[in-house]
Amino acid sequence: MPTTHHKERKFVISVIGAGSCDKDIYGLAEEVGRLIAQKGGTLITGGLGGVMEAASKGAKEAGGITVGILPGFSKEDANSFVTIPVATGLSHARNIIVARSADAVIAVSGEYGTLSEIAIALKLAKPVIGIKTWENIEGVIKAGSAEEAVNRALQLIK
Amino acid sequence: MPTTHHKERKFVISVIGAGSCDKDIYGLAEEVGRLIAQKGGTLITGGLGGVMEAASKGAKEAGGITVGILPGFSKEDANSFVTIPVATGLSHARNIIVARSADAVIAVSGEYGTLSEIAIALKLAKPVIGIKTWENIEGVIKAGSAEEAVNRALQLIK
Amino acid sequence: MPTTHHKERKFVISVIGAGSCDKDIYGLAEEVGRLIAQKGGTLITGGLGGVMEAASKGAKEAGGITVGILPGFSKEDANSFVTIPVATGLSHARNIIVARSADAVIAVSGEYGTLSEIAIALKLAKPVIGIKTWENIEGVIKAGSAEEAVNRALQLIK
Amino acid sequence: MPTTHHKERKFVISVIGAGSCDKDIYGLAEEVGRLIAQKGGTLITGGLGGVMEAASKGAKEAGGITVGILPGFSKEDANSFVTIPVATGLSHARNIIVARSADAVIAVSGEYGTLSEIAIALKLAKPVIGIKTWENIEGVIKAGSAEEAVNRALQLIK
Repeated sequence: MPTTHHKERKFVISVIGAGSCDKDIYGLAEEVGRLIAQKGGTLITGGLGGVMEAASKGAKEAGGITVGILPGFSKEDANSFVTIPVATGLSHARNIIVARSADAVIAVSGEYGTLSEIAIALKLAKPVIGIKTWENIEGVIKAGSAEEAVNRALQLIK
Repeated sequence: MPTTHHKERKFVISVIGAGSCDKDIYGLAEEVGRLIAQKGGTLITGGLGGVMEAASKGAKEAGGITVGILPGFSKEDANSFVTIPVATGLSHARNIIVARSADAVIAVSGEYGTLSEIAIALKLAKPVIGIKTWENIEGVIKAGSAEEAVNRALQLIK
Repeated sequence: MPTTHHKERKFVISVIGAGSCDKDIYGLAEEVGRLIAQKGGTLITGGLGGVMEAASKGAKEAGGITVGILPGFSKEDANSFVTIPVATGLSHARNIIVARSADAVIAVSGEYGTLSEIAIALKLAKPVIGIKTWENIEGVIKAGSAEEAVNRALQLIK
Repeated sequence: MPTTHHKERKFVISVIGAGSCDKDIYGLAEEVGRLIAQKGGTLITGGLGGVMEAASKGAKEAGGITVGILPGFSKEDANSFVTIPVATGLSHARNIIVARSADAVIAVSGEYGTLSEIAIALKLAKPVIGIKTWENIEGVIKAGSAEEAVNRALQLIK
């Protein structure tokens, strides 16, 4: 039987960042994921390790749905906190799908791959919030904490 | 709090078919979707109308998760029974993602787009079950009903 | 200085087929490639071995331009008869580019990958000519020789 | 008959930048394109207007081959200086192909789309030379003129 939470589609936030990260960044991304789920959103990430895993862990442990848009062919590549793995086989081109499918994007730390996702999201006129990530990219809204990032994202989602 | 059904990942079946179809095919695809959800699977489709909508309707109304891998840029393109829309912006190349992300593929009727998905799924060595679809493609397992199709898919998923 | 043959764009024919093949099919694909170049066309293939290599060899040795739309990341994957390698990194999704960029498609033998390209080309309403390839696909024009295939393609290019 | 310039593959430089630009940037990109062709290279661009058109014009008028990796479905979208149009139908995801297929990338001016291409090229460890483009992206080599940009690119191509 249909359940109420399917009636209206949830808002979607993509969390982007590097595939490996230190403990502080991991904790930050996990907090971002948890807040997204607690506010009722669906989380999208690139489905692998580091920031992607941390955000998925936070969201899944708070009862949320976590989508992983994977670069490879196998659903098994997904970290164990991804509930909906999508195997694209498109390698870096999957970054574009992560940006396109979101109502807002939150970047946590990250390197060139993250920069390319930030740029695509800005080109698509999506709200982009950054925590400890690329500085000096016009259009990125800087946040100092997980809570500030998620709150700003929610304000900006139409 | 985390719910039990997230602990282990569900099996995934993609249902493919044309974006518009007659009432009989619609009913057939709806039945396929419902059975997938009732057996505990996640449904993936291309997210648009016709067979994709019918399968999503069946699965969603049975309480299932329905992923729509859309060809365009906007989540709003998804039919109203898609719970997780993924906007790829890749047009036909999204067919490949539909095939890659599935444990098995069920084709219901369909034309050239469906044929391309069948071929890609076979190339990827996925089980492909067909109902009233392309005949004479070696490797497609023919089913006479929704129930037979879903049962055959489940048997073939490793 | 600009040369005359750049003034107007050449017609483009994509030759599709398996990445490995026997001697007879190789000879047939080589002949198709040579005829395309001799008639003044640009050849597109998937850039790898078998039918793709044979067609590229025929076209290049007749002085033609041969474009290879590669599945991987490295231009070095291209066979040595590809003059313009394009590294997509998209794996099978590059098949769609091979079909989209052509004025007509000639399939020589081939398996599931070829079938997916045939289907996409037909969906895009491109003329598709087949030699010793998938039978019984409505819309594929059957040719008995390389010459017949190229002549039919040229007639059908608007 | 085969011509000598096909024997060994040419080096490839991609020129990236916005689809519309002012006269100064147009002249700069045209000069970059001309130098690439004069030094014996193949030019790749995104195939549309602005910087892409200017570079293609410069290269084609110097006798070079100009490849246009188009976002849409139709070869007719290519500017008239593209000799080899490739219709990807992948929209922004085609940016990744532009970066992947090059031995080096030269960015001329540009906005978010260009930034995403710069980031992808850096991630792929390609040399990236920038003229009047995004500042403060670590890894981008700044050039003050078309000549300096092309010379630096040639030095860095292995």
